[in-house]
Amino acid sequence: MGLIGAAIAVAGAAIGAALGSSKVVAKTIESIARQPEMKGQLQTLMYIGVGLVEAIPIMAVVIAFILVFQ
Amino acid sequence: MGLIGAAIAVAGAAIGAALGSSKVVAKTIESIARQPEMKGQLQTLMYIGVGLVEAIPIMAVVIAFILVFQ
Amino acid sequence: MGLIGAAIAVAGAAIGAALGSSKVVAKTIESIARQPEMKGQLQTLMYIGVGLVEAIPIMAVVIAFILVFQ
Amino acid sequence: MGLIGAAIAVAGAAIGAALGSSKVVAKTIESIARQPEMKGQLQTLMYIGVGLVEAIPIMAVVIAFILVFQ
Amino acid sequence: MGLIGAAIAVAGAAIGAALGSSKVVAKTIESIARQPEMKGQLQTLMYIGVGLVEAIPIMAVVIAFILVFQ
Amino acid sequence: MGLIGAAIAVAGAAIGAALGSSKVVAKTIESIARQPEMKGQLQTLMYIGVGLVEAIPIMAVVIAFILVFQ
Amino acid sequence: MGLIGAAIAVAGAAIGAALGSSKVVAKTIESIARQPEMKGQLQTLMYIGVGLVEAIPIMAVVIAFILVFQ
Amino acid sequence: MGLIGAAIAVAGAAIGAALGSSKVVAKTIESIARQPEMKGQLQTLMYIGVGLVEAIPIMAVVIAFILVFQ
Amino acid sequence: MGLIGAAIAVAGAAIGAALGSSKVVAKTIESIARQPEMKGQLQTLMYIGVGLVEAIPIMAVVIAFILVFQ
Amino acid sequence: MGLIGAAIAVAGAAIGAALGSSKVVAKTIESIARQPEMKGQLQTLMYIGVGLVEAIPIMAVVIAFILVFQ
Amino acid sequence: MGLIGAAIAVAGAAIGAALGSSKVVAKTIESIARQPEMKGQLQTLMYIGVGLVEAIPIMAVVIAFILVFQ
Amino acid sequence: MGLIGAAIAVAGAAIGAALGSSKVVAKTIESIARQPEMKGQLQTLMYIGVGLVEAIPIMAVVIAFILVFQ
Amino acid sequence: MGLIGAAIAVAGAAIGAALGSSKVVAKTIESIARQPEMKGQLQTLMYIGVGLVEAIPIMAVVIAFILVFQ
Amino acid sequence: MGLIGAAIAVAGAAIGAALGSSKVVAKTIESIARQPEMKGQLQTLMYIGVGLVEAIPIMAVVIAFILVFQ
Repeated sequence: MGLIGAAIAVAGAAIGAALGSSKVVAKTIESIARQPEMKGQLQTLMYIGVGLVEAIPIMAVVIAFILVFQ
Repeated sequence: MGLIGAAIAVAGAAIGAALGSSKVVAKTIESIARQPEMKGQLQTLMYIGVGLVEAIPIMAVVIAFILVFQ
Repeated sequence: MGLIGAAIAVAGAAIGAALGSSKVVAKTIESIARQPEMKGQLQTLMYIGVGLVEAIPIMAVVIAFILVFQ
Repeated sequence: MGLIGAAIAVAGAAIGAALGSSKVVAKTIESIARQPEMKGQLQTLMYIGVGLVEAIPIMAVVIAFILVFQ
Repeated sequence: MGLIGAAIAVAGAAIGAALGSSKVVAKTIESIARQPEMKGQLQTLMYIGVGLVEAIPIMAVVIAFILVFQ
Repeated sequence: MGLIGAAIAVAGAAIGAALGSSKVVAKTIESIARQPEMKGQLQTLMYIGVGLVEAIPIMAVVIAFILVFQ
Repeated sequence: MGLIGAAIAVAGAAIGAALGSSKVVAKTIESIARQPEMKGQLQTLMYIGVGLVEAIPIMAVVIAFILVFQ
Repeated sequence: MGLIGAAIAVAGAAIGAALGSSKVVAKTIESIARQPEMKGQLQTLMYIGVGLVEAIPIMAVVIAFILVFQ
Repeated sequence: MGLIGAAIAVAGAAIGAALGSSKVVAKTIESIARQPEMKGQLQTLMYIGVGLVEAIPIMAVVIAFILVFQ
Repeated sequence: MGLIGAAIAVAGAAIGAALGSSKVVAKTIESIARQPEMKGQLQTLMYIGVGLVEAIPIMAVVIAFILVFQ
Repeated sequence: MGLIGAAIAVAGAAIGAALGSSKVVAKTIESIARQPEMKGQLQTLMYIGVGLVEAIPIMAVVIAFILVFQ
Repeated sequence: MGLIGAAIAVAGAAIGAALGSSKVVAKTIESIARQPEMKGQLQTLMYIGVGLVEAIPIMAVVIAFILVFQ
Repeated sequence: MGLIGAAIAVAGAAIGAALGSSKVVAKTIESIARQPEMKGQLQTLMYIGVGLVEAIPIMAVVIAFILVFQ
Repeated sequence: MGLIGAAIAVAGAAIGAALGSSKVVAKTIESIARQPEMKGQLQTLMYIGVGLVEAIPIMAVVIAFILVFQ
């Protein structure tokens, strides 16, 4: 039962994190292409933003590992 | 039964938090790219906003941990 | 049975609250970026709005805790 | 059986109330940002509107509590 | 069986009523922000409209109470 | 079996009626805000329209009551 | 078995009829607000149109009554 | 088994016919409001069109009656 | 088993045919309202088009009748 | 088992074919209404296109007949 | 078991192929209506494109036949 | 069990490949209709693109054949 | 059990890879049609992009093969 | 049970990663086509972005391998 649970948790984490962080990255690339002089600031913000976005999915991955090895 | 429950809770938390906070971050990057002089204020607001958005998903993660170790 | 119930309740609360409050925060950031002189008023309204939005999801979290520890 | 029922009821209430009231709040913030001189009136309307929107979800929460403690 | 039924009925009522009445309220706020001189008339119409929208969901809540206490 | 049936019937009626009549009311508010001189005629039409929209959902509520008390 | 069937039939009828006829009514209100001189003709057309739209859902209600009292 | 079948058939027929014919009627009302001089021709076309749209759903209703009384 | 099958087949046919042919009819009404002088040609094309669209759904109805009376 | 299979196959065929060919026919009517002098060529293309679109659904109908009479 | 499998395979093939090839055909009709002098080239491309689109669905039909007659 | 598996695999492959490659082909036809002088280059790119798009679905078909004949 | 698993894995891989890489290819064709002088660079980028997009789906295919032959 | 779990995990990873990274790549190609002089910087950002997007899906693949070989 824990194995199916791990799969559901990690699948939800993968879909959520990929869609969420791709939205942040795509918006950053679009903004840098328009204002190249702001590249440094926006890239820093992108790293922070992806970190914030992937915080909860990484916890889901941790729970999935716990469910697998329990 | 609690293991599947933990997986559902954390998967919902991951999808909701990733989609929600990526929306906030993407809007912040877009706004800073247009008005670079407001970077400090908007970045502060982004941290507060992501914190507000991820408040409930983090509770879901807490409940998932309780369901796992119960 | 109560454990699956807690998971459903908290997952629904997390998805609803994250999507709802991210909408409020994103709209606030967009509005402040356009009219920086209204930052104080809009930020106050954002806190009230997020509080109103997350009122029902927090009740769902409370019910989830009751279902877990019952 | 009542425990799963409480979870379904409160999850539906959380999703509905969060999406509905966030729509009202976001529209209010947008309108105040455009016409700051109407802030008082629109904010009053927002409180009334959120109250109307969350009337039925709160009944769902009440029914969920009844289902839990029955 | 009646307990699950009450939950389905009240969850549907909460989602429908919240989405429906938030649409009416949001449109009213938008219209008042554009024509402030019509505030009285539109606000009256909003109360009538929300009443009409929430007529059937309230019947669903009544049926849910009957299902719970039957 | 009839209790679940009553819940499905009344949940469908609540979602359909709330979404449908809110569409009519929102469109009426929008139209009156643009042409205030037509308020009387459009409001009459709104009452007729909501009546037509909610005709079938009210039959669903009737069937739900029959299913409950059968 | 016939009771669940009646509920499915009448729920489908309620959702379909409410969404369909609200579309006709909303479009009529919008058109009358733009051309008030055509009110009579469009209103007649609306009654015919709602009648045509609700023809099949009413048959579904009839079948639901047959399923209930069979 | 035939009773559930009749319900599925008539619910599908009701949703399909209501959404389909409301699309035709709404487009007709919109077109007549723009070109009132073509009212006769478009109204004739609307009757034909609704007849064509509801041909298959009426067959579904017939099959539902057969399934009920078989 | 064949009775449920007939219901699924005829429900799919009703939804598909109603949505498909209503699209053709609505586009025809729109086009005739713009170019009234082409009414004859477009109406002929509409009959042919609805015939082509409803060819497969009518086969589904035939299969449904075979499943009922088998 | 083959009877349910025939129903699924023919329902999928009906939905796919009706939505697909209605798209082709609606686009043809729209194009002919704009360039009446190309009516012959576009109508020929429409017949070919509907034939190509309905090739696979007709195979699904054939398989459904095989499943029924097997 | 193979009969249900054949139905799922051929239903997926029918929906995919009909939606996909109708997109190609509709885009071709639209393009030819705008540039009639390119009719030959675009029509050739349409045949190739429909062939490429329907390559995998035809394999699905082949597998469905194998599943039926196995 | 392998027969249902083959059907799921090949149905997913058919839907994915048809929707994906039809997008590539439709975009190619649109681009060639605008710049006829680039026909050769874009057509070559279309063949490569469809090949890349259908690479994974063909592997799904291969796995489906293995599941059938295993 | 592994056979159904292989089918789910490869079906998800096929849908994801086909939709994802077709988006990259379609955007490349559109961009080359607008700026033919950049054909070489964009085509190189397309190969890299499709490779990156199909990296995870190919791993899903590998896992599907392992599940089949295990 | 672990085999189905591996399939769910890797299918979710494949869909999420393919849709997410294709969004990043497509946006990069579009931006480079508009500003060719920024090719180097945007391409570097694309590699970083795809790496960030595919971080969680790769963890899902790792968990899938663990579930298979456990």
